[in-house]
Amino acid sequence: MTEKMKKDIQKMLKASRDAIVCSIDDQGAPAAKAMFVLTNDEPGIFWFSTNTSSIRAGHFGKRPQASLYFFDPKGLQMRGLLIIGTMEVRLDDQTKKAFWKPTDRIYYPKGPTDPDYCILRFTPGQCNYYHSLQKHLFAFEELMR
Amino acid sequence: MTEKMKKDIQKMLKASRDAIVCSIDDQGAPAAKAMFVLTNDEPGIFWFSTNTSSIRAGHFGKRPQASLYFFDPKGLQMRGLLIIGTMEVRLDDQTKKAFWKPTDRIYYPKGPTDPDYCILRFTPGQCNYYHSLQKHLFAFEELMR
Repeated sequence: MTEKMKKDIQKMLKASRDAIVCSIDDQGAPAAKAMFVLTNDEPGIFWFSTNTSSIRAGHFGKRPQASLYFFDPKGLQMRGLLIIGTMEVRLDDQTKKAFWKPTDRIYYPKGPTDPDYCILRFTPGQCNYYHSLQKHLFAFEELMR
Repeated sequence: MTEKMKKDIQKMLKASRDAIVCSIDDQGAPAAKAMFVLTNDEPGIFWFSTNTSSIRAGHFGKRPQASLYFFDPKGLQMRGLLIIGTMEVRLDDQTKKAFWKPTDRIYYPKGPTDPDYCILRFTPGQCNYYHSLQKHLFAFEELMR
Protein backbone atom coordinates (compact mmCIF):
# COMPACT_ATOMS: atom_id res chain seq x y z
CA MET A 1 0.00 0.00 0.00
CA THR A 2 1.31 3.45 -0.89
CA GLU A 3 1.66 6.18 1.74
CA LYS A 4 -0.87 8.26 -0.23
CA MET A 5 -3.48 5.49 -0.07
CA LYS A 6 -2.84 4.96 3.63
CA LYS A 7 -3.37 8.67 4.29
CA ASP A 8 -6.54 8.75 2.17
CA ILE A 9 -8.01 5.83 4.09
CA GLN A 10 -7.05 7.25 7.48
CA LYS A 11 -8.62 10.57 6.48
CA MET A 12 -11.84 8.85 5.39
CA LEU A 13 -12.01 6.90 8.67
CA LYS A 14 -11.43 10.06 10.71
CA ALA A 15 -14.11 11.98 8.80
CA SER A 16 -16.73 9.24 9.22
CA ARG A 17 -19.31 9.83 11.91
CA ASP A 18 -20.97 6.51 11.06
CA ALA A 19 -19.96 3.04 9.96
CA ILE A 20 -22.23 0.63 8.18
CA VAL A 21 -22.14 -2.32 10.57
CA CYS A 22 -22.82 -5.70 8.95
CA SER A 23 -23.92 -8.87 10.69
CA ILE A 24 -25.51 -12.20 9.79
CA ASP A 25 -29.11 -12.75 10.81
CA ASP A 26 -30.78 -15.87 12.18
CA GLN A 27 -31.63 -17.07 8.66
CA GLY A 28 -28.02 -16.65 7.52
CA ALA A 29 -28.69 -13.48 5.50
CA PRO A 30 -26.42 -10.44 5.64
CA ALA A 31 -27.78 -7.37 7.45
CA ALA A 32 -26.52 -3.78 7.67
CA LYS A 33 -27.15 -0.74 9.81
CA ALA A 34 -25.50 2.68 10.06
CA MET A 35 -24.16 3.23 13.58
CA PHE A 36 -22.24 6.07 15.23
CA VAL A 37 -18.58 5.23 15.82
CA LEU A 38 -17.69 5.94 19.46
CA THR A 39 -14.48 7.85 20.11
CA ASN A 40 -11.87 5.94 22.04
CA ASP A 41 -8.15 5.82 22.81
CA GLU A 42 -7.41 2.32 21.59
CA PRO A 43 -6.07 2.63 18.05
CA GLY A 44 -7.42 0.12 15.59
CA ILE A 45 -10.47 -0.92 17.61
CA PHE A 46 -13.97 0.29 16.77
CA TRP A 47 -16.67 0.67 19.40
CA PHE A 48 -20.44 1.11 19.13
CA SER A 49 -23.31 1.23 21.58
CA THR A 50 -26.72 -0.34 21.13
CA ASN A 51 -29.67 -1.82 22.97
CA THR A 52 -28.93 -5.26 24.41
CA SER A 53 -32.37 -6.29 23.13
CA SER A 54 -31.60 -5.02 19.59
CA ILE A 55 -31.63 -7.26 16.56
CA ARG A 56 -27.96 -6.48 15.94
CA ALA A 57 -26.69 -7.37 19.44
CA GLY A 58 -28.62 -10.63 19.07
CA HIS A 59 -26.84 -11.44 15.81
CA PHE A 60 -23.36 -10.85 17.22
CA GLY A 61 -24.12 -12.78 20.39
CA LYS A 62 -24.73 -15.83 18.17
CA ARG A 63 -22.27 -15.12 15.34
CA PRO A 64 -19.35 -12.78 15.94
CA GLN A 65 -18.51 -12.55 12.23
CA ALA A 66 -18.90 -8.89 11.28
CA SER A 67 -17.77 -6.19 8.93
CA LEU A 68 -17.65 -2.42 8.84
CA TYR A 69 -18.08 -0.41 5.68
CA PHE A 70 -17.00 3.19 5.24
CA PHE A 71 -17.60 5.09 2.05
CA ASP A 72 -17.78 8.51 0.51
CA PRO A 73 -21.45 9.06 -0.38
CA LYS A 74 -20.72 12.34 -2.20
CA GLY A 75 -17.98 11.05 -4.48
CA LEU A 76 -18.70 10.84 -8.19
CA GLN A 77 -16.91 7.50 -8.32
CA MET A 78 -17.37 4.84 -5.70
CA ARG A 79 -14.76 4.81 -2.99
CA GLY A 80 -15.16 2.61 0.04
CA LEU A 81 -13.41 0.53 2.64
CA LEU A 82 -14.70 -2.83 3.84
CA ILE A 83 -13.16 -4.19 7.03
CA ILE A 84 -13.89 -7.80 7.89
CA GLY A 85 -13.53 -8.73 11.56
CA THR A 86 -15.24 -9.90 14.71
CA MET A 87 -17.72 -8.17 16.98
CA GLU A 88 -17.85 -8.79 20.71
CA VAL A 89 -20.86 -7.82 22.85
CA ARG A 90 -19.70 -6.23 26.12
CA LEU A 91 -22.19 -6.14 28.98
CA ASP A 92 -19.86 -5.35 31.90
CA ASP A 93 -20.46 -2.09 33.78
CA GLN A 94 -16.82 -1.00 33.48
CA THR A 95 -16.95 -0.88 29.67
CA LYS A 96 -20.46 0.57 29.66
CA LYS A 97 -19.46 3.38 32.04
CA ALA A 98 -16.30 4.14 30.07
CA PHE A 99 -18.34 5.04 26.98
CA TRP A 100 -21.31 6.63 28.71
CA LYS A 101 -22.34 10.14 27.66
CA PRO A 102 -25.20 12.10 29.30
CA THR A 103 -27.08 12.25 25.98
CA ASP A 104 -27.15 8.42 25.91
CA ARG A 105 -30.11 8.60 28.27
CA ILE A 106 -32.36 9.10 25.21
CA TYR A 107 -31.50 5.54 24.19
CA TYR A 108 -30.91 3.96 27.62
CA PRO A 109 -33.23 5.63 30.16
CA LYS A 110 -31.84 3.68 33.14
CA GLY A 111 -28.36 5.16 32.74
CA PRO A 112 -24.92 3.59 32.34
CA THR A 113 -25.86 0.34 34.05
CA ASP A 114 -29.14 -0.04 32.10
CA PRO A 115 -29.34 -3.78 31.27
CA ASP A 116 -30.67 -2.78 27.86
CA TYR A 117 -27.45 -0.85 27.09
CA CYS A 118 -24.45 -2.71 25.72
CA ILE A 119 -21.19 -1.95 23.96
CA LEU A 120 -20.00 -3.59 20.76
CA ARG A 121 -16.25 -4.00 20.23
CA PHE A 122 -15.03 -4.62 16.68
CA THR A 123 -11.59 -6.11 16.02
CA PRO A 124 -10.55 -5.59 12.39
CA GLY A 125 -8.90 -8.17 10.17
CA GLN A 126 -8.73 -8.13 6.38
CA CYS A 127 -9.64 -5.02 4.37
CA ASN A 128 -10.80 -4.27 0.86
CA TYR A 129 -10.34 -0.68 -0.26
CA TYR A 130 -12.05 0.18 -3.52
CA HIS A 131 -11.20 3.36 -5.38
CA SER A 132 -10.54 4.50 -8.96
CA LEU A 133 -12.17 1.27 -10.19
CA GLN A 134 -9.60 -0.89 -8.41
CA LYS A 135 -9.63 -2.99 -5.28
CA HIS A 136 -6.77 -3.23 -2.81
CA LEU A 137 -6.70 -6.08 -0.31
CA PHE A 138 -4.61 -5.74 2.85
CA ALA A 139 -4.55 -6.48 6.57
CA PHE A 140 -5.88 -3.67 8.79
CA GLU A 141 -2.59 -3.62 10.76
CA GLU A 142 -0.91 -2.13 7.71
CA LEU A 143 -2.84 1.08 8.35
CA MET A 144 -1.45 1.23 11.90
CA ARG A 145 2.23 1.08 10.99
CA MET B 1 -47.42 1.04 8.16
CA THR B 2 -48.78 4.58 8.00
CA GLU B 3 -49.16 6.40 4.67
CA LYS B 4 -46.65 9.00 5.92
CA MET B 5 -44.01 6.33 6.58
CA LYS B 6 -44.64 4.70 3.21
CA LYS B 7 -44.15 8.05 1.47
CA ASP B 8 -40.98 8.80 3.46
CA ILE B 9 -39.48 5.44 2.50
CA GLN B 10 -40.45 5.76 -1.16
CA LYS B 11 -38.91 9.25 -1.20
CA MET B 12 -35.67 7.96 0.34
CA LEU B 13 -35.49 5.12 -2.20
CA LYS B 14 -36.10 7.52 -5.10
CA ALA B 15 -33.43 9.95 -3.86
CA SER B 16 -30.78 7.22 -3.45
CA ARG B 17 -28.19 6.98 -6.20
CA ASP B 18 -26.51 4.08 -4.39
CA ALA B 19 -27.50 1.11 -2.30
CA ILE B 20 -25.20 -0.64 0.14
CA VAL B 21 -25.25 -4.16 -1.27
CA CYS B 22 -24.55 -6.89 1.29
CA SER B 23 -23.40 -10.43 0.59
CA ILE B 24 -21.79 -13.32 2.45
CA ASP B 25 -18.18 -14.10 1.66
CA ASP B 26 -16.47 -17.49 1.29
CA GLN B 27 -15.61 -17.55 5.00
CA GLY B 28 -19.23 -16.84 5.95
CA ALA B 29 -18.60 -13.21 6.93
CA PRO B 30 -20.91 -10.38 5.88
CA ALA B 31 -19.57 -7.99 3.22
CA ALA B 32 -20.86 -4.64 1.94
CA LYS B 33 -20.26 -2.38 -1.03
CA ALA B 34 -21.93 0.79 -2.29
CA MET B 35 -23.29 0.24 -5.81
CA PHE B 36 -25.24 2.43 -8.23
CA VAL B 37 -28.89 1.43 -8.53
CA LEU B 38 -29.79 1.00 -12.22
CA THR B 39 -32.99 2.60 -13.40
CA ASN B 40 -35.60 0.15 -14.66
CA ASP B 41 -39.30 -0.24 -15.35
CA GLU B 42 -40.01 -3.22 -13.14
CA PRO B 43 -41.37 -1.87 -9.85
CA GLY B 44 -39.99 -3.48 -6.74
CA ILE B 45 -36.93 -5.06 -8.36
CA PHE B 46 -33.44 -3.61 -7.93
CA TRP B 47 -30.73 -4.02 -10.58
CA PHE B 48 -26.97 -3.49 -10.46
CA SER B 49 -24.10 -4.08 -12.84
CA THR B 50 -20.68 -5.40 -11.93
CA ASN B 51 -17.71 -7.33 -13.23
CA THR B 52 -18.40 -11.06 -13.58
CA SER B 53 -14.96 -11.61 -12.04
CA SER B 54 -15.75 -9.35 -9.08
CA ILE B 55 -15.69 -10.58 -5.50
CA ARG B 56 -19.37 -9.70 -5.15
CA ALA B 57 -20.63 -11.60 -8.21
CA GLY B 58 -18.66 -14.58 -6.87
CA HIS B 59 -20.43 -14.38 -3.51
CA PHE B 60 -23.92 -14.28 -5.03
CA GLY B 61 -23.11 -17.07 -7.46
CA LYS B 62 -22.52 -19.31 -4.45
CA ARG B 63 -24.98 -17.81 -1.95
CA PRO B 64 -27.91 -15.77 -3.22
CA GLN B 65 -28.77 -14.44 0.25
CA ALA B 66 -28.43 -10.68 0.04
CA SER B 67 -29.59 -7.40 1.47
CA LEU B 68 -29.75 -3.77 0.43
CA TYR B 69 -29.34 -0.91 2.83
CA PHE B 70 -30.45 2.65 2.17
CA PHE B 71 -29.88 5.43 4.64
CA ASP B 72 -29.73 9.16 5.08
CA PRO B 73 -26.07 9.98 5.75
CA LYS B 74 -26.81 13.63 6.50
CA GLY B 75 -29.55 13.09 9.06
CA LEU B 76 -28.84 14.00 12.67
CA GLN B 77 -30.59 10.85 13.78
CA MET B 78 -30.11 7.52 12.11
CA ARG B 79 -32.73 6.65 9.54
CA GLY B 80 -32.31 3.65 7.30
CA LEU B 81 -34.02 0.87 5.45
CA LEU B 82 -32.69 -2.68 5.33
CA ILE B 83 -34.23 -4.96 2.69
CA ILE B 84 -33.46 -8.67 2.96
CA GLY B 85 -33.80 -10.66 -0.25
CA THR B 86 -32.06 -12.69 -2.90
CA MET B 87 -29.60 -11.72 -5.60
CA GLU B 88 -29.46 -13.42 -8.96
CA VAL B 89 -26.46 -13.11 -11.30
CA ARG B 90 -27.62 -12.58 -14.90
CA LEU B 91 -25.13 -13.34 -17.66
CA ASP B 92 -27.47 -13.49 -20.68
CA ASP B 93 -26.91 -10.96 -23.46
CA GLN B 94 -30.55 -9.87 -23.48
CA THR B 95 -30.44 -8.60 -19.90
CA LYS B 96 -26.94 -7.18 -20.33
CA LYS B 97 -27.96 -5.24 -23.45
CA ALA B 98 -31.14 -3.95 -21.79
CA PHE B 99 -29.12 -2.13 -19.12
CA TRP B 100 -26.15 -1.09 -21.26
CA LYS B 101 -25.16 2.59 -21.32
CA PRO B 102 -22.32 3.99 -23.49
CA THR B 103 -20.44 5.14 -20.37
CA ASP B 104 -20.33 1.53 -19.15
CA ARG B 105 -17.36 1.00 -21.46
CA ILE B 106 -15.13 2.42 -18.68
CA TYR B 107 -15.94 -0.68 -16.64
CA TYR B 108 -16.52 -3.23 -19.43
CA PRO B 109 -14.23 -2.39 -22.37
CA LYS B 110 -15.59 -5.16 -24.60
CA GLY B 111 -19.08 -3.64 -24.66
CA PRO B 112 -22.52 -5.06 -23.81
CA THR B 113 -21.53 -8.67 -24.46
CA ASP B 114 -18.25 -8.41 -22.49
CA PRO B 115 -18.01 -11.71 -20.56
CA ASP B 116 -16.69 -9.71 -17.61
CA TYR B 117 -19.92 -7.68 -17.47
CA CYS B 118 -22.92 -9.05 -15.60
CA ILE B 119 -26.18 -7.84 -14.14
CA LEU B 120 -27.36 -8.46 -10.59
CA ARG B 121 -31.11 -8.72 -9.95
CA PHE B 122 -32.33 -8.27 -6.39
CA THR B 123 -35.75 -9.52 -5.30
CA PRO B 124 -36.81 -7.94 -2.00
CA GLY B 125 -38.44 -9.73 0.91
CA GLN B 126 -38.60 -8.56 4.52
CA CYS B 127 -37.73 -4.98 5.48
CA ASN B 128 -36.59 -3.20 8.61
CA TYR B 129 -37.08 0.57 8.59
CA TYR B 130 -35.38 2.38 11.43
CA HIS B 131 -36.25 5.95 12.27
CA SER B 132 -36.93 8.12 15.33
CA LEU B 133 -35.27 5.42 17.47
CA GLN B 134 -37.83 2.81 16.42
CA LYS B 135 -37.77 -0.14 14.09
CA HIS B 136 -40.63 -1.12 11.80
CA LEU B 137 -40.67 -4.61 10.29
CA PHE B 138 -42.75 -5.25 7.17
CA ALA B 139 -42.81 -7.09 3.83
CA PHE B 140 -41.50 -5.04 0.87
CA GLU B 141 -44.78 -5.62 -1.01
CA GLU B 142 -46.50 -3.32 1.47
CA LEU B 143 -44.60 -0.42 -0.13
CA MET B 144 -45.97 -1.36 -3.55
CA ARG B 145 -49.64 -1.27 -2.63
